[in-house]
Amino acid sequence: MSQAAAIEFQDLSRLVLPRSIALVGASDKPHSIGARTLENLLDHSDWHGELSLVNPGRDAVAGRPCLRSVLDLAAAPDVAIVAVPAGAAIAALEDCARIGTRFAIVFTSGFGELGEAGRDAEARMRAIAQRSGMRIYGPNCPGLNNINGRLGMSFSPAYRLDRMPGPIGVATQGGGLGRAFMQSAMARGVGSGLWCSSGNEADLEVSDYIHYMADAPDIRVIYTVIEGVRDGARFMAAALHAARRGKPIVAIKVGKSDYGVKAAASHTAAITGSAEVNAAVFRELGIVEVDDIDEAVDAATLLARGRPSGREKIAVYCFSGGTGALTSDRIGVAGLTMSELAPPTLDALRRWLPPYAPIGNPVDVTAEVLVNAEIAYATLKATADDPDTGLVVVPIPVEYRQTTELMAQSMVRVQADVKKPLLPIWISDRSGAGQAALIAGGLAPMRSVRNAVAAIGRYIEHGRWQAGHDPQWQPLGRAGPAPASTTTLTEAAAKRLLQQAGVAVPDSRLARSADEAAAAFAALGAPQVALKVLSATITHKTDVGGVRLGLRSAAEAKAAFDAIVADVGRAQGAAAIEGVLVETQLDQPFVEVVVGIQRDPVFGHLCTFGLGGVAVELFKDVSRALLPLTPASALALVRATRCHALLAGRRGQPPFDIEALVAALVALSDFVVRHAAHIEELEVNPLAVRARGLGVMALDAVLTTASKEAFEC
Amino acid sequence: MSQAAAIEFQDLSRLVLPRSIALVGASDKPHSIGARTLENLLDHSDWHGELSLVNPGRDAVAGRPCLRSVLDLAAAPDVAIVAVPAGAAIAALEDCARIGTRFAIVFTSGFGELGEAGRDAEARMRAIAQRSGMRIYGPNCPGLNNINGRLGMSFSPAYRLDRMPGPIGVATQGGGLGRAFMQSAMARGVGSGLWCSSGNEADLEVSDYIHYMADAPDIRVIYTVIEGVRDGARFMAAALHAARRGKPIVAIKVGKSDYGVKAAASHTAAITGSAEVNAAVFRELGIVEVDDIDEAVDAATLLARGRPSGREKIAVYCFSGGTGALTSDRIGVAGLTMSELAPPTLDALRRWLPPYAPIGNPVDVTAEVLVNAEIAYATLKATADDPDTGLVVVPIPVEYRQTTELMAQSMVRVQADVKKPLLPIWISDRSGAGQAALIAGGLAPMRSVRNAVAAIGRYIEHGRWQAGHDPQWQPLGRAGPAPASTTTLTEAAAKRLLQQAGVAVPDSRLARSADEAAAAFAALGAPQVALKVLSATITHKTDVGGVRLGLRSAAEAKAAFDAIVADVGRAQGAAAIEGVLVETQLDQPFVEVVVGIQRDPVFGHLCTFGLGGVAVELFKDVSRALLPLTPASALALVRATRCHALLAGRRGQPPFDIEALVAALVALSDFVVRHAAHIEELEVNPLAVRARGLGVMALDAVLTTASKEAFEC
Repeated sequence: MSQAAAIEFQDLSRLVLPRSIALVGASDKPHSIGARTLENLLDHSDWHGELSLVNPGRDAVAGRPCLRSVLDLAAAPDVAIVAVPAGAAIAALEDCARIGTRFAIVFTSGFGELGEAGRDAEARMRAIAQRSGMRIYGPNCPGLNNINGRLGMSFSPAYRLDRMPGPIGVATQGGGLGRAFMQSAMARGVGSGLWCSSGNEADLEVSDYIHYMADAPDIRVIYTVIEGVRDGARFMAAALHAARRGKPIVAIKVGKSDYGVKAAASHTAAITGSAEVNAAVFRELGIVEVDDIDEAVDAATLLARGRPSGREKIAVYCFSGGTGALTSDRIGVAGLTMSELAPPTLDALRRWLPPYAPIGNPVDVTAEVLVNAEIAYATLKATADDPDTGLVVVPIPVEYRQTTELMAQSMVRVQADVKKPLLPIWISDRSGAGQAALIAGGLAPMRSVRNAVAAIGRYIEHGRWQAGHDPQWQPLGRAGPAPASTTTLTEAAAKRLLQQAGVAVPDSRLARSADEAAAAFAALGAPQVALKVLSATITHKTDVGGVRLGLRSAAEAKAAFDAIVADVGRAQGAAAIEGVLVETQLDQPFVEVVVGIQRDPVFGHLCTFGLGGVAVELFKDVSRALLPLTPASALALVRATRCHALLAGRRGQPPFDIEALVAALVALSDFVVRHAAHIEELEVNPLAVRARGLGVMALDAVLTTASKEAFEC
Repeated sequence: MSQAAAIEFQDLSRLVLPRSIALVGASDKPHSIGARTLENLLDHSDWHGELSLVNPGRDAVAGRPCLRSVLDLAAAPDVAIVAVPAGAAIAALEDCARIGTRFAIVFTSGFGELGEAGRDAEARMRAIAQRSGMRIYGPNCPGLNNINGRLGMSFSPAYRLDRMPGPIGVATQGGGLGRAFMQSAMARGVGSGLWCSSGNEADLEVSDYIHYMADAPDIRVIYTVIEGVRDGARFMAAALHAARRGKPIVAIKVGKSDYGVKAAASHTAAITGSAEVNAAVFRELGIVEVDDIDEAVDAATLLARGRPSGREKIAVYCFSGGTGALTSDRIGVAGLTMSELAPPTLDALRRWLPPYAPIGNPVDVTAEVLVNAEIAYATLKATADDPDTGLVVVPIPVEYRQTTELMAQSMVRVQADVKKPLLPIWISDRSGAGQAALIAGGLAPMRSVRNAVAAIGRYIEHGRWQAGHDPQWQPLGRAGPAPASTTTLTEAAAKRLLQQAGVAVPDSRLARSADEAAAAFAALGAPQVALKVLSATITHKTDVGGVRLGLRSAAEAKAAFDAIVADVGRAQGAAAIEGVLVETQLDQPFVEVVVGIQRDPVFGHLCTFGLGGVAVELFKDVSRALLPLTPASALALVRATRCHALLAGRRGQPPFDIEALVAALVALSDFVVRHAAHIEELEVNPLAVRARGLGVMALDAVLTTASKEAFEC
């Protein structure tokens, strides 16, 4: 493995908005792919570039001249749309490449999704792309819809239905989850201006489209569905580019369960990867991961409306006490913060509301009040103007004719006057004029309290991420398959390396007699020691009486030596005993944590952190971060687990040395970065985190390498 | 505290469908409460009972005769609707009671929701009800809508909009969350036939309406919103009655966070109680708890369609590979099981689908196929007929005109031919003919994959609960406020009681010299012992060197005695040492669990179970069950925590003694039931669960009682 090469992305401007297109497989046979594509280009696009038609069997199509081969074109087109049967696709691509075509969009299906032979054909496509520089979009895709540019390079009749210009870029492999998102966002008044549906990704992949959208001035938010990440380094580079450009990525990840892994594999031949690793990487890259299409629409439409600071507090404004209570409750359950309305806000509400209305947050203006437009505007405006409030959520439980219409109109009016988002929730499944007014007014109403609260949480969290993100940071990104064989260093060798890395390990002495054990106790100078039998043949030392803990005097150490020799001798025979290790034993409270650094084949080295003991296994209470760790990311790693509550000192107990833990995490990361080519895995388990000021100590460690000689063992 | 009295519920038939109604506060002043109520009764109901109008200032209202007082009525009505100002309500109720009115519905607001004076007025209403036997519905409520009976006893104009007869009974305190549910369910084609909105519950409460609905033949599912449970025993009795009648209860609980608790208190003056206790009680009573209105509609409409067995496996049928993968993925994440399609099913699919379609579950018929009605019907029918499939979920990602309409029609046709539910998910926010066809066909489409999977999970879980529920079981139900003062027994006394209860505790001896320690080791006959200093003045024994563990010989015990005396003497002075306890120490692996039985003021005694150590505190990995425990409920308690994985033997390790743990839980429950009047809390922490066959041992215990003398300490 060599140092990762710089990752380059091609400018896709001429793919997204070509000056010239050749339609290979043009047709006017009704319902054919070629005819439907031609209709979309001619009748449903507003594009003024040069269109050439190619069909080996036709001189004219739909009344336009048609060439027999792309080789007959006068000049290479920016884009060749390949709408030919699977058997003819490779030859068509070869021809396109030969004349210097920049991009080919391949609709044709019947490749990787069908099995091995199809995957071979895709490999040939990739080879054509690499050889010629012609980049390939597809195969097995519905095309590319540049809606803001009014150009549909697609055979799908649905293109005509789903055309609303807007700020969202959609980059998906498959079609269904892209179009489902677009329809729902459109139904809420928010358009998706560009949709790249990359199909089997023989060459260009979702990462390329994300990178393009990050630079596209008409795109503010990117939506994607990830069934599998083939090239982790490219994906990370594209995502970090979007982050630098301030374009949030909202992503659905498919493949979090065995059923999903299997279905995704059968659908796009995608290898889904570890759900936990994916989620951790997404979080670190600032990707807003969601679980479903409605959540994606919620998050994307909200992020399209404004840039969160990460410090937003929420006001709830409603005309139903129960709905206000439910919404407040869910805000609390989600760990979000409600605003404390300032005295002038409360005064304004008191001025407008009847004496029986409770004054506070949630702001509960009763339904009776809302029949008055002046009061509706004034109370909502006062709430929105409140200085502690960063976002106003307005749950509307029912379609209630004039009442809800007036409420919607007030929201639109107030939103025109304030910058912070007003977020309506149209809870009822019954549509109405109020809902329509909200949509027309650009307020993109959500559909359920839980969804809205989840979207607000993601919105705020993304703001916090943006504020805390270091734009200079780059992942180590040493991806690649696992080596054929690895070696695991001995505990002693691993501990020596940890000491070199700057992480403390316990001091110890070998004793071969009871007197040597007593002497070792004195030499170590520790308040207490542990004695452990040393034996190449005994794996479970405790089970044979080979361990004594908490020995606080030379006499106790001496008695323990004899007791161990007697017990182990009885169980295993005296010959098994090579000696007894006398090791300093921490005598003050400490917390055992686990630190593991592993190389993921897709994303490279990640650090996993968690509480030791059964917690990791039973509760999966671990956090993960890409290497290199920084002091900030290491602290975030610790804070992301419940273990942090323990370390911070619960119930008035003194805190543990989180500072030293963070320093040790960074030291371990630095060590692995220095030896990245040679380390597959380094696990410190447990790492003892002592009371604040006393530091940490690695009590056991395992290092796995593909090149043992690198560590001179 | 005496034994709980039998809980009685009044028959509410004459409240829900009275033969006679007196409208007190009748009016024809436009928009007045009295006039709106009268319109609903006369113009929007189809009720043929006897209606009397009462208004002290009018002889006629809306052209009908009007009495000056209820005292002038010829006969007591079944229902008096009280629509008078707050100041006149009590007097009106007194009059109604005096003439023997059966039920009063009090719309009037301005009571408990405004504070102390209002609560006093409600107490007077309650006194009237108790004295006279006239039951009171309200105050501060929108009335009672008997939609199946075509009678609206409500002042709300919304009554006219929200009238679709149907199988769901709605029992809520407030109005908004009731109506929001009804509108959404109606929009999906499912009506709510009865809505009781109980307001401030001066007398009758949600439990009474639930009990009535359990017996009502036209109601199949009950929806409720719980802001607080005032009378836990009544609530449990009503819920268990519904369970016996096979009527699932779907409930939203408000008050799971501080914000929600505060908002609910300000809204209906409800005391919300502990969210964890509520959730545990709901689960045990078979109540389907949901977090939001859309989830309530999903669960209730699905449960209204059929009775789950609890063993349903799921087939996914779709025309978009990505959507099928997403749905399968979420099914897996939710821990549900997909069906394995039988060979005849697969053969049928192969016969109808094109060669490139992957054959399996998810069933992915491509969009191309769905233009053919015959294939659409045949493939869906084959899927639904599959013997391993208990439910077919059909995610529809987009509104796609003829395609989705045809798919909807196929679903309706197939559903007419099969009993197991077909569950469509209309994912897109864009409506369409397909969605309308699904609604008209009674298939109540859901709106998101996650929601549908959650609803299916709840549906199956409810079937499992019904199958496992013991209809004879009754909760101990010793509710009531905490006693003014309590006493905590000494560890020794508590352990003696545990032994009486049949739970083992460790054997021990007191040693006053090193030789006595050695003798104690011999006398105990255990492979290892622990030595602990005995002192009334030392709280943290370990900190002063007062504890030695893992001593495996008389010599070690002797040395440890001397070491403890030296260490503790140095730290605290020899006078602090009363002796040293020599205690058998379990030398084989065991798991420390925590068992706590506490009396909840609302629901009575509950048992809390969880893994010992930091797990309970950090991960809240505990389960709860009402007393009395049965072997089945005790096992469920253990299985509900992740601790169960540890006990069952992970990674090929031998299992621990779950049978003995279950027996100990039941023994502890029986013990507390026997002494229920005297036990506020019993905590065994830790209880050591040893390897299978070795039993359990209580290592420490605390018992808190209000009457120390009951245990002769």
